[in-house]
Amino acid sequence: MKETIKRVLQFTKDRDWDQFHRPENLAKSISIEAAELLECFQWNSNYDHDKVIDELADILNYCILMADKLDVDIEEIILNKIEKNELKYPIDKAKGRSDKYTKL
Amino acid sequence: MKETIKRVLQFTKDRDWDQFHRPENLAKSISIEAAELLECFQWNSNYDHDKVIDELADILNYCILMADKLDVDIEEIILNKIEKNELKYPIDKAKGRSDKYTKL
Amino acid sequence: MKETIKRVLQFTKDRDWDQFHRPENLAKSISIEAAELLECFQWNSNYDHDKVIDELADILNYCILMADKLDVDIEEIILNKIEKNELKYPIDKAKGRSDKYTKL
Amino acid sequence: MKETIKRVLQFTKDRDWDQFHRPENLAKSISIEAAELLECFQWNSNYDHDKVIDELADILNYCILMADKLDVDIEEIILNKIEKNELKYPIDKAKGRSDKYTKL
Repeated sequence: MKETIKRVLQFTKDRDWDQFHRPENLAKSISIEAAELLECFQWNSNYDHDKVIDELADILNYCILMADKLDVDIEEIILNKIEKNELKYPIDKAKGRSDKYTKL
Repeated sequence: MKETIKRVLQFTKDRDWDQFHRPENLAKSISIEAAELLECFQWNSNYDHDKVIDELADILNYCILMADKLDVDIEEIILNKIEKNELKYPIDKAKGRSDKYTKL
Repeated sequence: MKETIKRVLQFTKDRDWDQFHRPENLAKSISIEAAELLECFQWNSNYDHDKVIDELADILNYCILMADKLDVDIEEIILNKIEKNELKYPIDKAKGRSDKYTKL
Repeated sequence: MKETIKRVLQFTKDRDWDQFHRPENLAKSISIEAAELLECFQWNSNYDHDKVIDELADILNYCILMADKLDVDIEEIILNKIEKNELKYPIDKAKGRSDKYTKL
């Protein structure tokens, strides 16, 4: 993953885009790309596999830039969040249920 | 990253949540989490670092589930998208500009 | 407003699009259009007035379709929500503060 | 509708919130509320009618504030957009199809 992240950061550096990438702008960008992913499913569940993958990659791309900007490690924050979610959604309560933790 | 992905998938498996995770549901979930990240910047640029990190992790979490569901490798799709973006945003045209590729 | 709503509904009827407009699809559509509005502000605060207006109209359009689908009156639900918000955000507590009601 | 709009604006004025409501903040707010509406449909199509209505009202509320900020009339911009959409989606081409205008 390190090499991939390096490549993403280099792409931005080559274009001198770091100046536009304040956390706030990246947060907006993630929302915008997430909506483009959602658009693949706007009217029905049949989706264009390649289009979906490209939109997913765009979101991941901005997530990598955000993590870099916040100076955090992606794997670390995912694992930390999983630990929190394990407390919010204990297996015996959450198993087979899609309810929010506030309703378990 | 492989271990992190395994952990994310195991979390879902332990709770028997795979049944809820059609690509369409994951796309909605990513948009919902992206908006929670955006909410950290709703009124100004001062943000709660820990809150932002947690929301970013939630997005990444769903992105991992989506990639698994689509049976694609995260690093591979990011690198493929970077290659496409290099064509859309050639350095000499895009350098220092935040314009969309259609306006370069 | 009644005439405007009638026009929006007629547009849909003329195209036989009602079949696509389940509440779920309209909710997705509102999110997608909201992100297009957000895109007008992605990198800075300078916005294209005409573009912003068009995106805002798209959101309102889908909101009207959603209200029709749910069989509710737009003005009534806005006024009802304002009443709830008056309780959540009492003037003496909320004045001049952008905090969420949970933090007042 | 004029009275409803007046009430929405008065709510904001009473709380001295106008200072927070730059177009950019309102665009973010609309996206955030749109995602809360989407959350009502996150895992399935069964929705809580009252919750959906409240979220829809929140979106409309911010749309009204945005229109006021941009100094445009809601009905006028909806009707103008409908006229544009009539050109983008002529009945004979668009009837019964959910395709984007670029694919008709």
